[in-house]
Amino acid sequence: MPSKLPNSSSKINRNFKLTIEYDGANFCGWQIQKNGERTVQEELEKACARIFKHRVHVVGSGRTDSGVHAAGQVVSFKAETRMNPLEIQKALHSRMPNDIAILEVKEVPADFHAQYSVREKTYRYTILNRAHRSAFLRQHAYFYPYPLNMIRMRQAARFLTGRHDFRSFQAHDPLRAERGTVRTIRQITIRKEKDLIHIDITANGFLYKMVRNISGTLIAIGSGQVPLENIATILKAKSRSAARDTAPAHGLCLLRVKY
Amino acid sequence: MPSKLPNSSSKINRNFKLTIEYDGANFCGWQIQKNGERTVQEELEKACARIFKHRVHVVGSGRTDSGVHAAGQVVSFKAETRMNPLEIQKALHSRMPNDIAILEVKEVPADFHAQYSVREKTYRYTILNRAHRSAFLRQHAYFYPYPLNMIRMRQAARFLTGRHDFRSFQAHDPLRAERGTVRTIRQITIRKEKDLIHIDITANGFLYKMVRNISGTLIAIGSGQVPLENIATILKAKSRSAARDTAPAHGLCLLRVKY
Repeated sequence: MPSKLPNSSSKINRNFKLTIEYDGANFCGWQIQKNGERTVQEELEKACARIFKHRVHVVGSGRTDSGVHAAGQVVSFKAETRMNPLEIQKALHSRMPNDIAILEVKEVPADFHAQYSVREKTYRYTILNRAHRSAFLRQHAYFYPYPLNMIRMRQAARFLTGRHDFRSFQAHDPLRAERGTVRTIRQITIRKEKDLIHIDITANGFLYKMVRNISGTLIAIGSGQVPLENIATILKAKSRSAARDTAPAHGLCLLRVKY
Repeated sequence: MPSKLPNSSSKINRNFKLTIEYDGANFCGWQIQKNGERTVQEELEKACARIFKHRVHVVGSGRTDSGVHAAGQVVSFKAETRMNPLEIQKALHSRMPNDIAILEVKEVPADFHAQYSVREKTYRYTILNRAHRSAFLRQHAYFYPYPLNMIRMRQAARFLTGRHDFRSFQAHDPLRAERGTVRTIRQITIRKEKDLIHIDITANGFLYKMVRNISGTLIAIGSGQVPLENIATILKAKSRSAARDTAPAHGLCLLRVKY
């Protein structure tokens, strides 16, 4: 009997990193739901199981809620395969619904983990700020028809930048055991492009619904419902009831994740 | 009995012009269908009937097919009402599904007719030209992953500009009695913005599916499937079979209508 050639037919357990985009409008968020609702994780795991002929557990950089979008979500998974990244990308694409796009597939060292290896993430909250709503942006921007003072919003944002206990901006989630409530916001930029206001927040990590709670509070400050000075009190209170309403999910998008 | 004050309770038959935006993805086009499918015209007529308490016939500047979008469709209708345009806009908005937005309501002279009074219209055909598709643009741009030569496309477009018999770019439609097949294309601009190619066509009128047929032909010329020189033969043939495939509906948007 001929001796087996090295690697000729042996399968390799390899680690892959995907960068993906999804339109959250018709998903019940990232994470697989017990009730079988449509989720991004489930679509990916179903496709991987078919491609690699074994069960695959895919890990996202973090969960996104129902209705939240991602322009650069990062996912990692281990698979027994000899396919190269481009082949995997094509195979995945052909099995994805058209509201998920696979932007990139890379092979990564075994210790890379899409969630634990995160260095920083950037989320964008988008507000449509004009008199009439938009048929096109109905699922991608929060329609807010009242005047917003950008200067006050930026001042409040500057106050939140840095290392703080963000408990006032954390929603309760029984499924999450948060590792404390101190995070570092590296940058908040608030830009206006025609009728759209983009709030981009980069941090080393986010508490549950933190971006939507900060955005809701910045909107309340911009509209004058909450005085700018209150931002200090809200942050110091370390209580969710101190901050303002959570801005709606459909205005939120995970822009990018750095490792 | 006191004499009636002028106009105190008499209703006025007035003519209104709406500018509206709609996301065509979930509509079976503009025109009311016999089978009861969801159309923009029907949504507007239903809402008008409720607001004005009488049947209202709304006229669009032209039909748009299933899946085609509009950023500036113009609509006219006559109604017996004493409401002012802003009140009508609000009343309509509150009754519209969120994939239709009422951008403007104006009162216009009795002889204004959204279809017959058109001077020119501009349509945009959008192509997503990159290696991977987009989750966000899946219903708003035609995904074409192969190289397109913009110079050749622009040369072909220049050839089509002006007054011509566009029969080669007309789809057969038993419901339409076209007034001849000669139209004047005032301008075609082809611009690339990152991964998107926009083909904007302005004309005094369009034949059925003319923009999608021209776009399909320009794509075939840009990709090299059809030599640039053939554009003259295609136009002269005055036969639909001479031109190329109709580009898909979801890449098309009615940008604006001038009167």
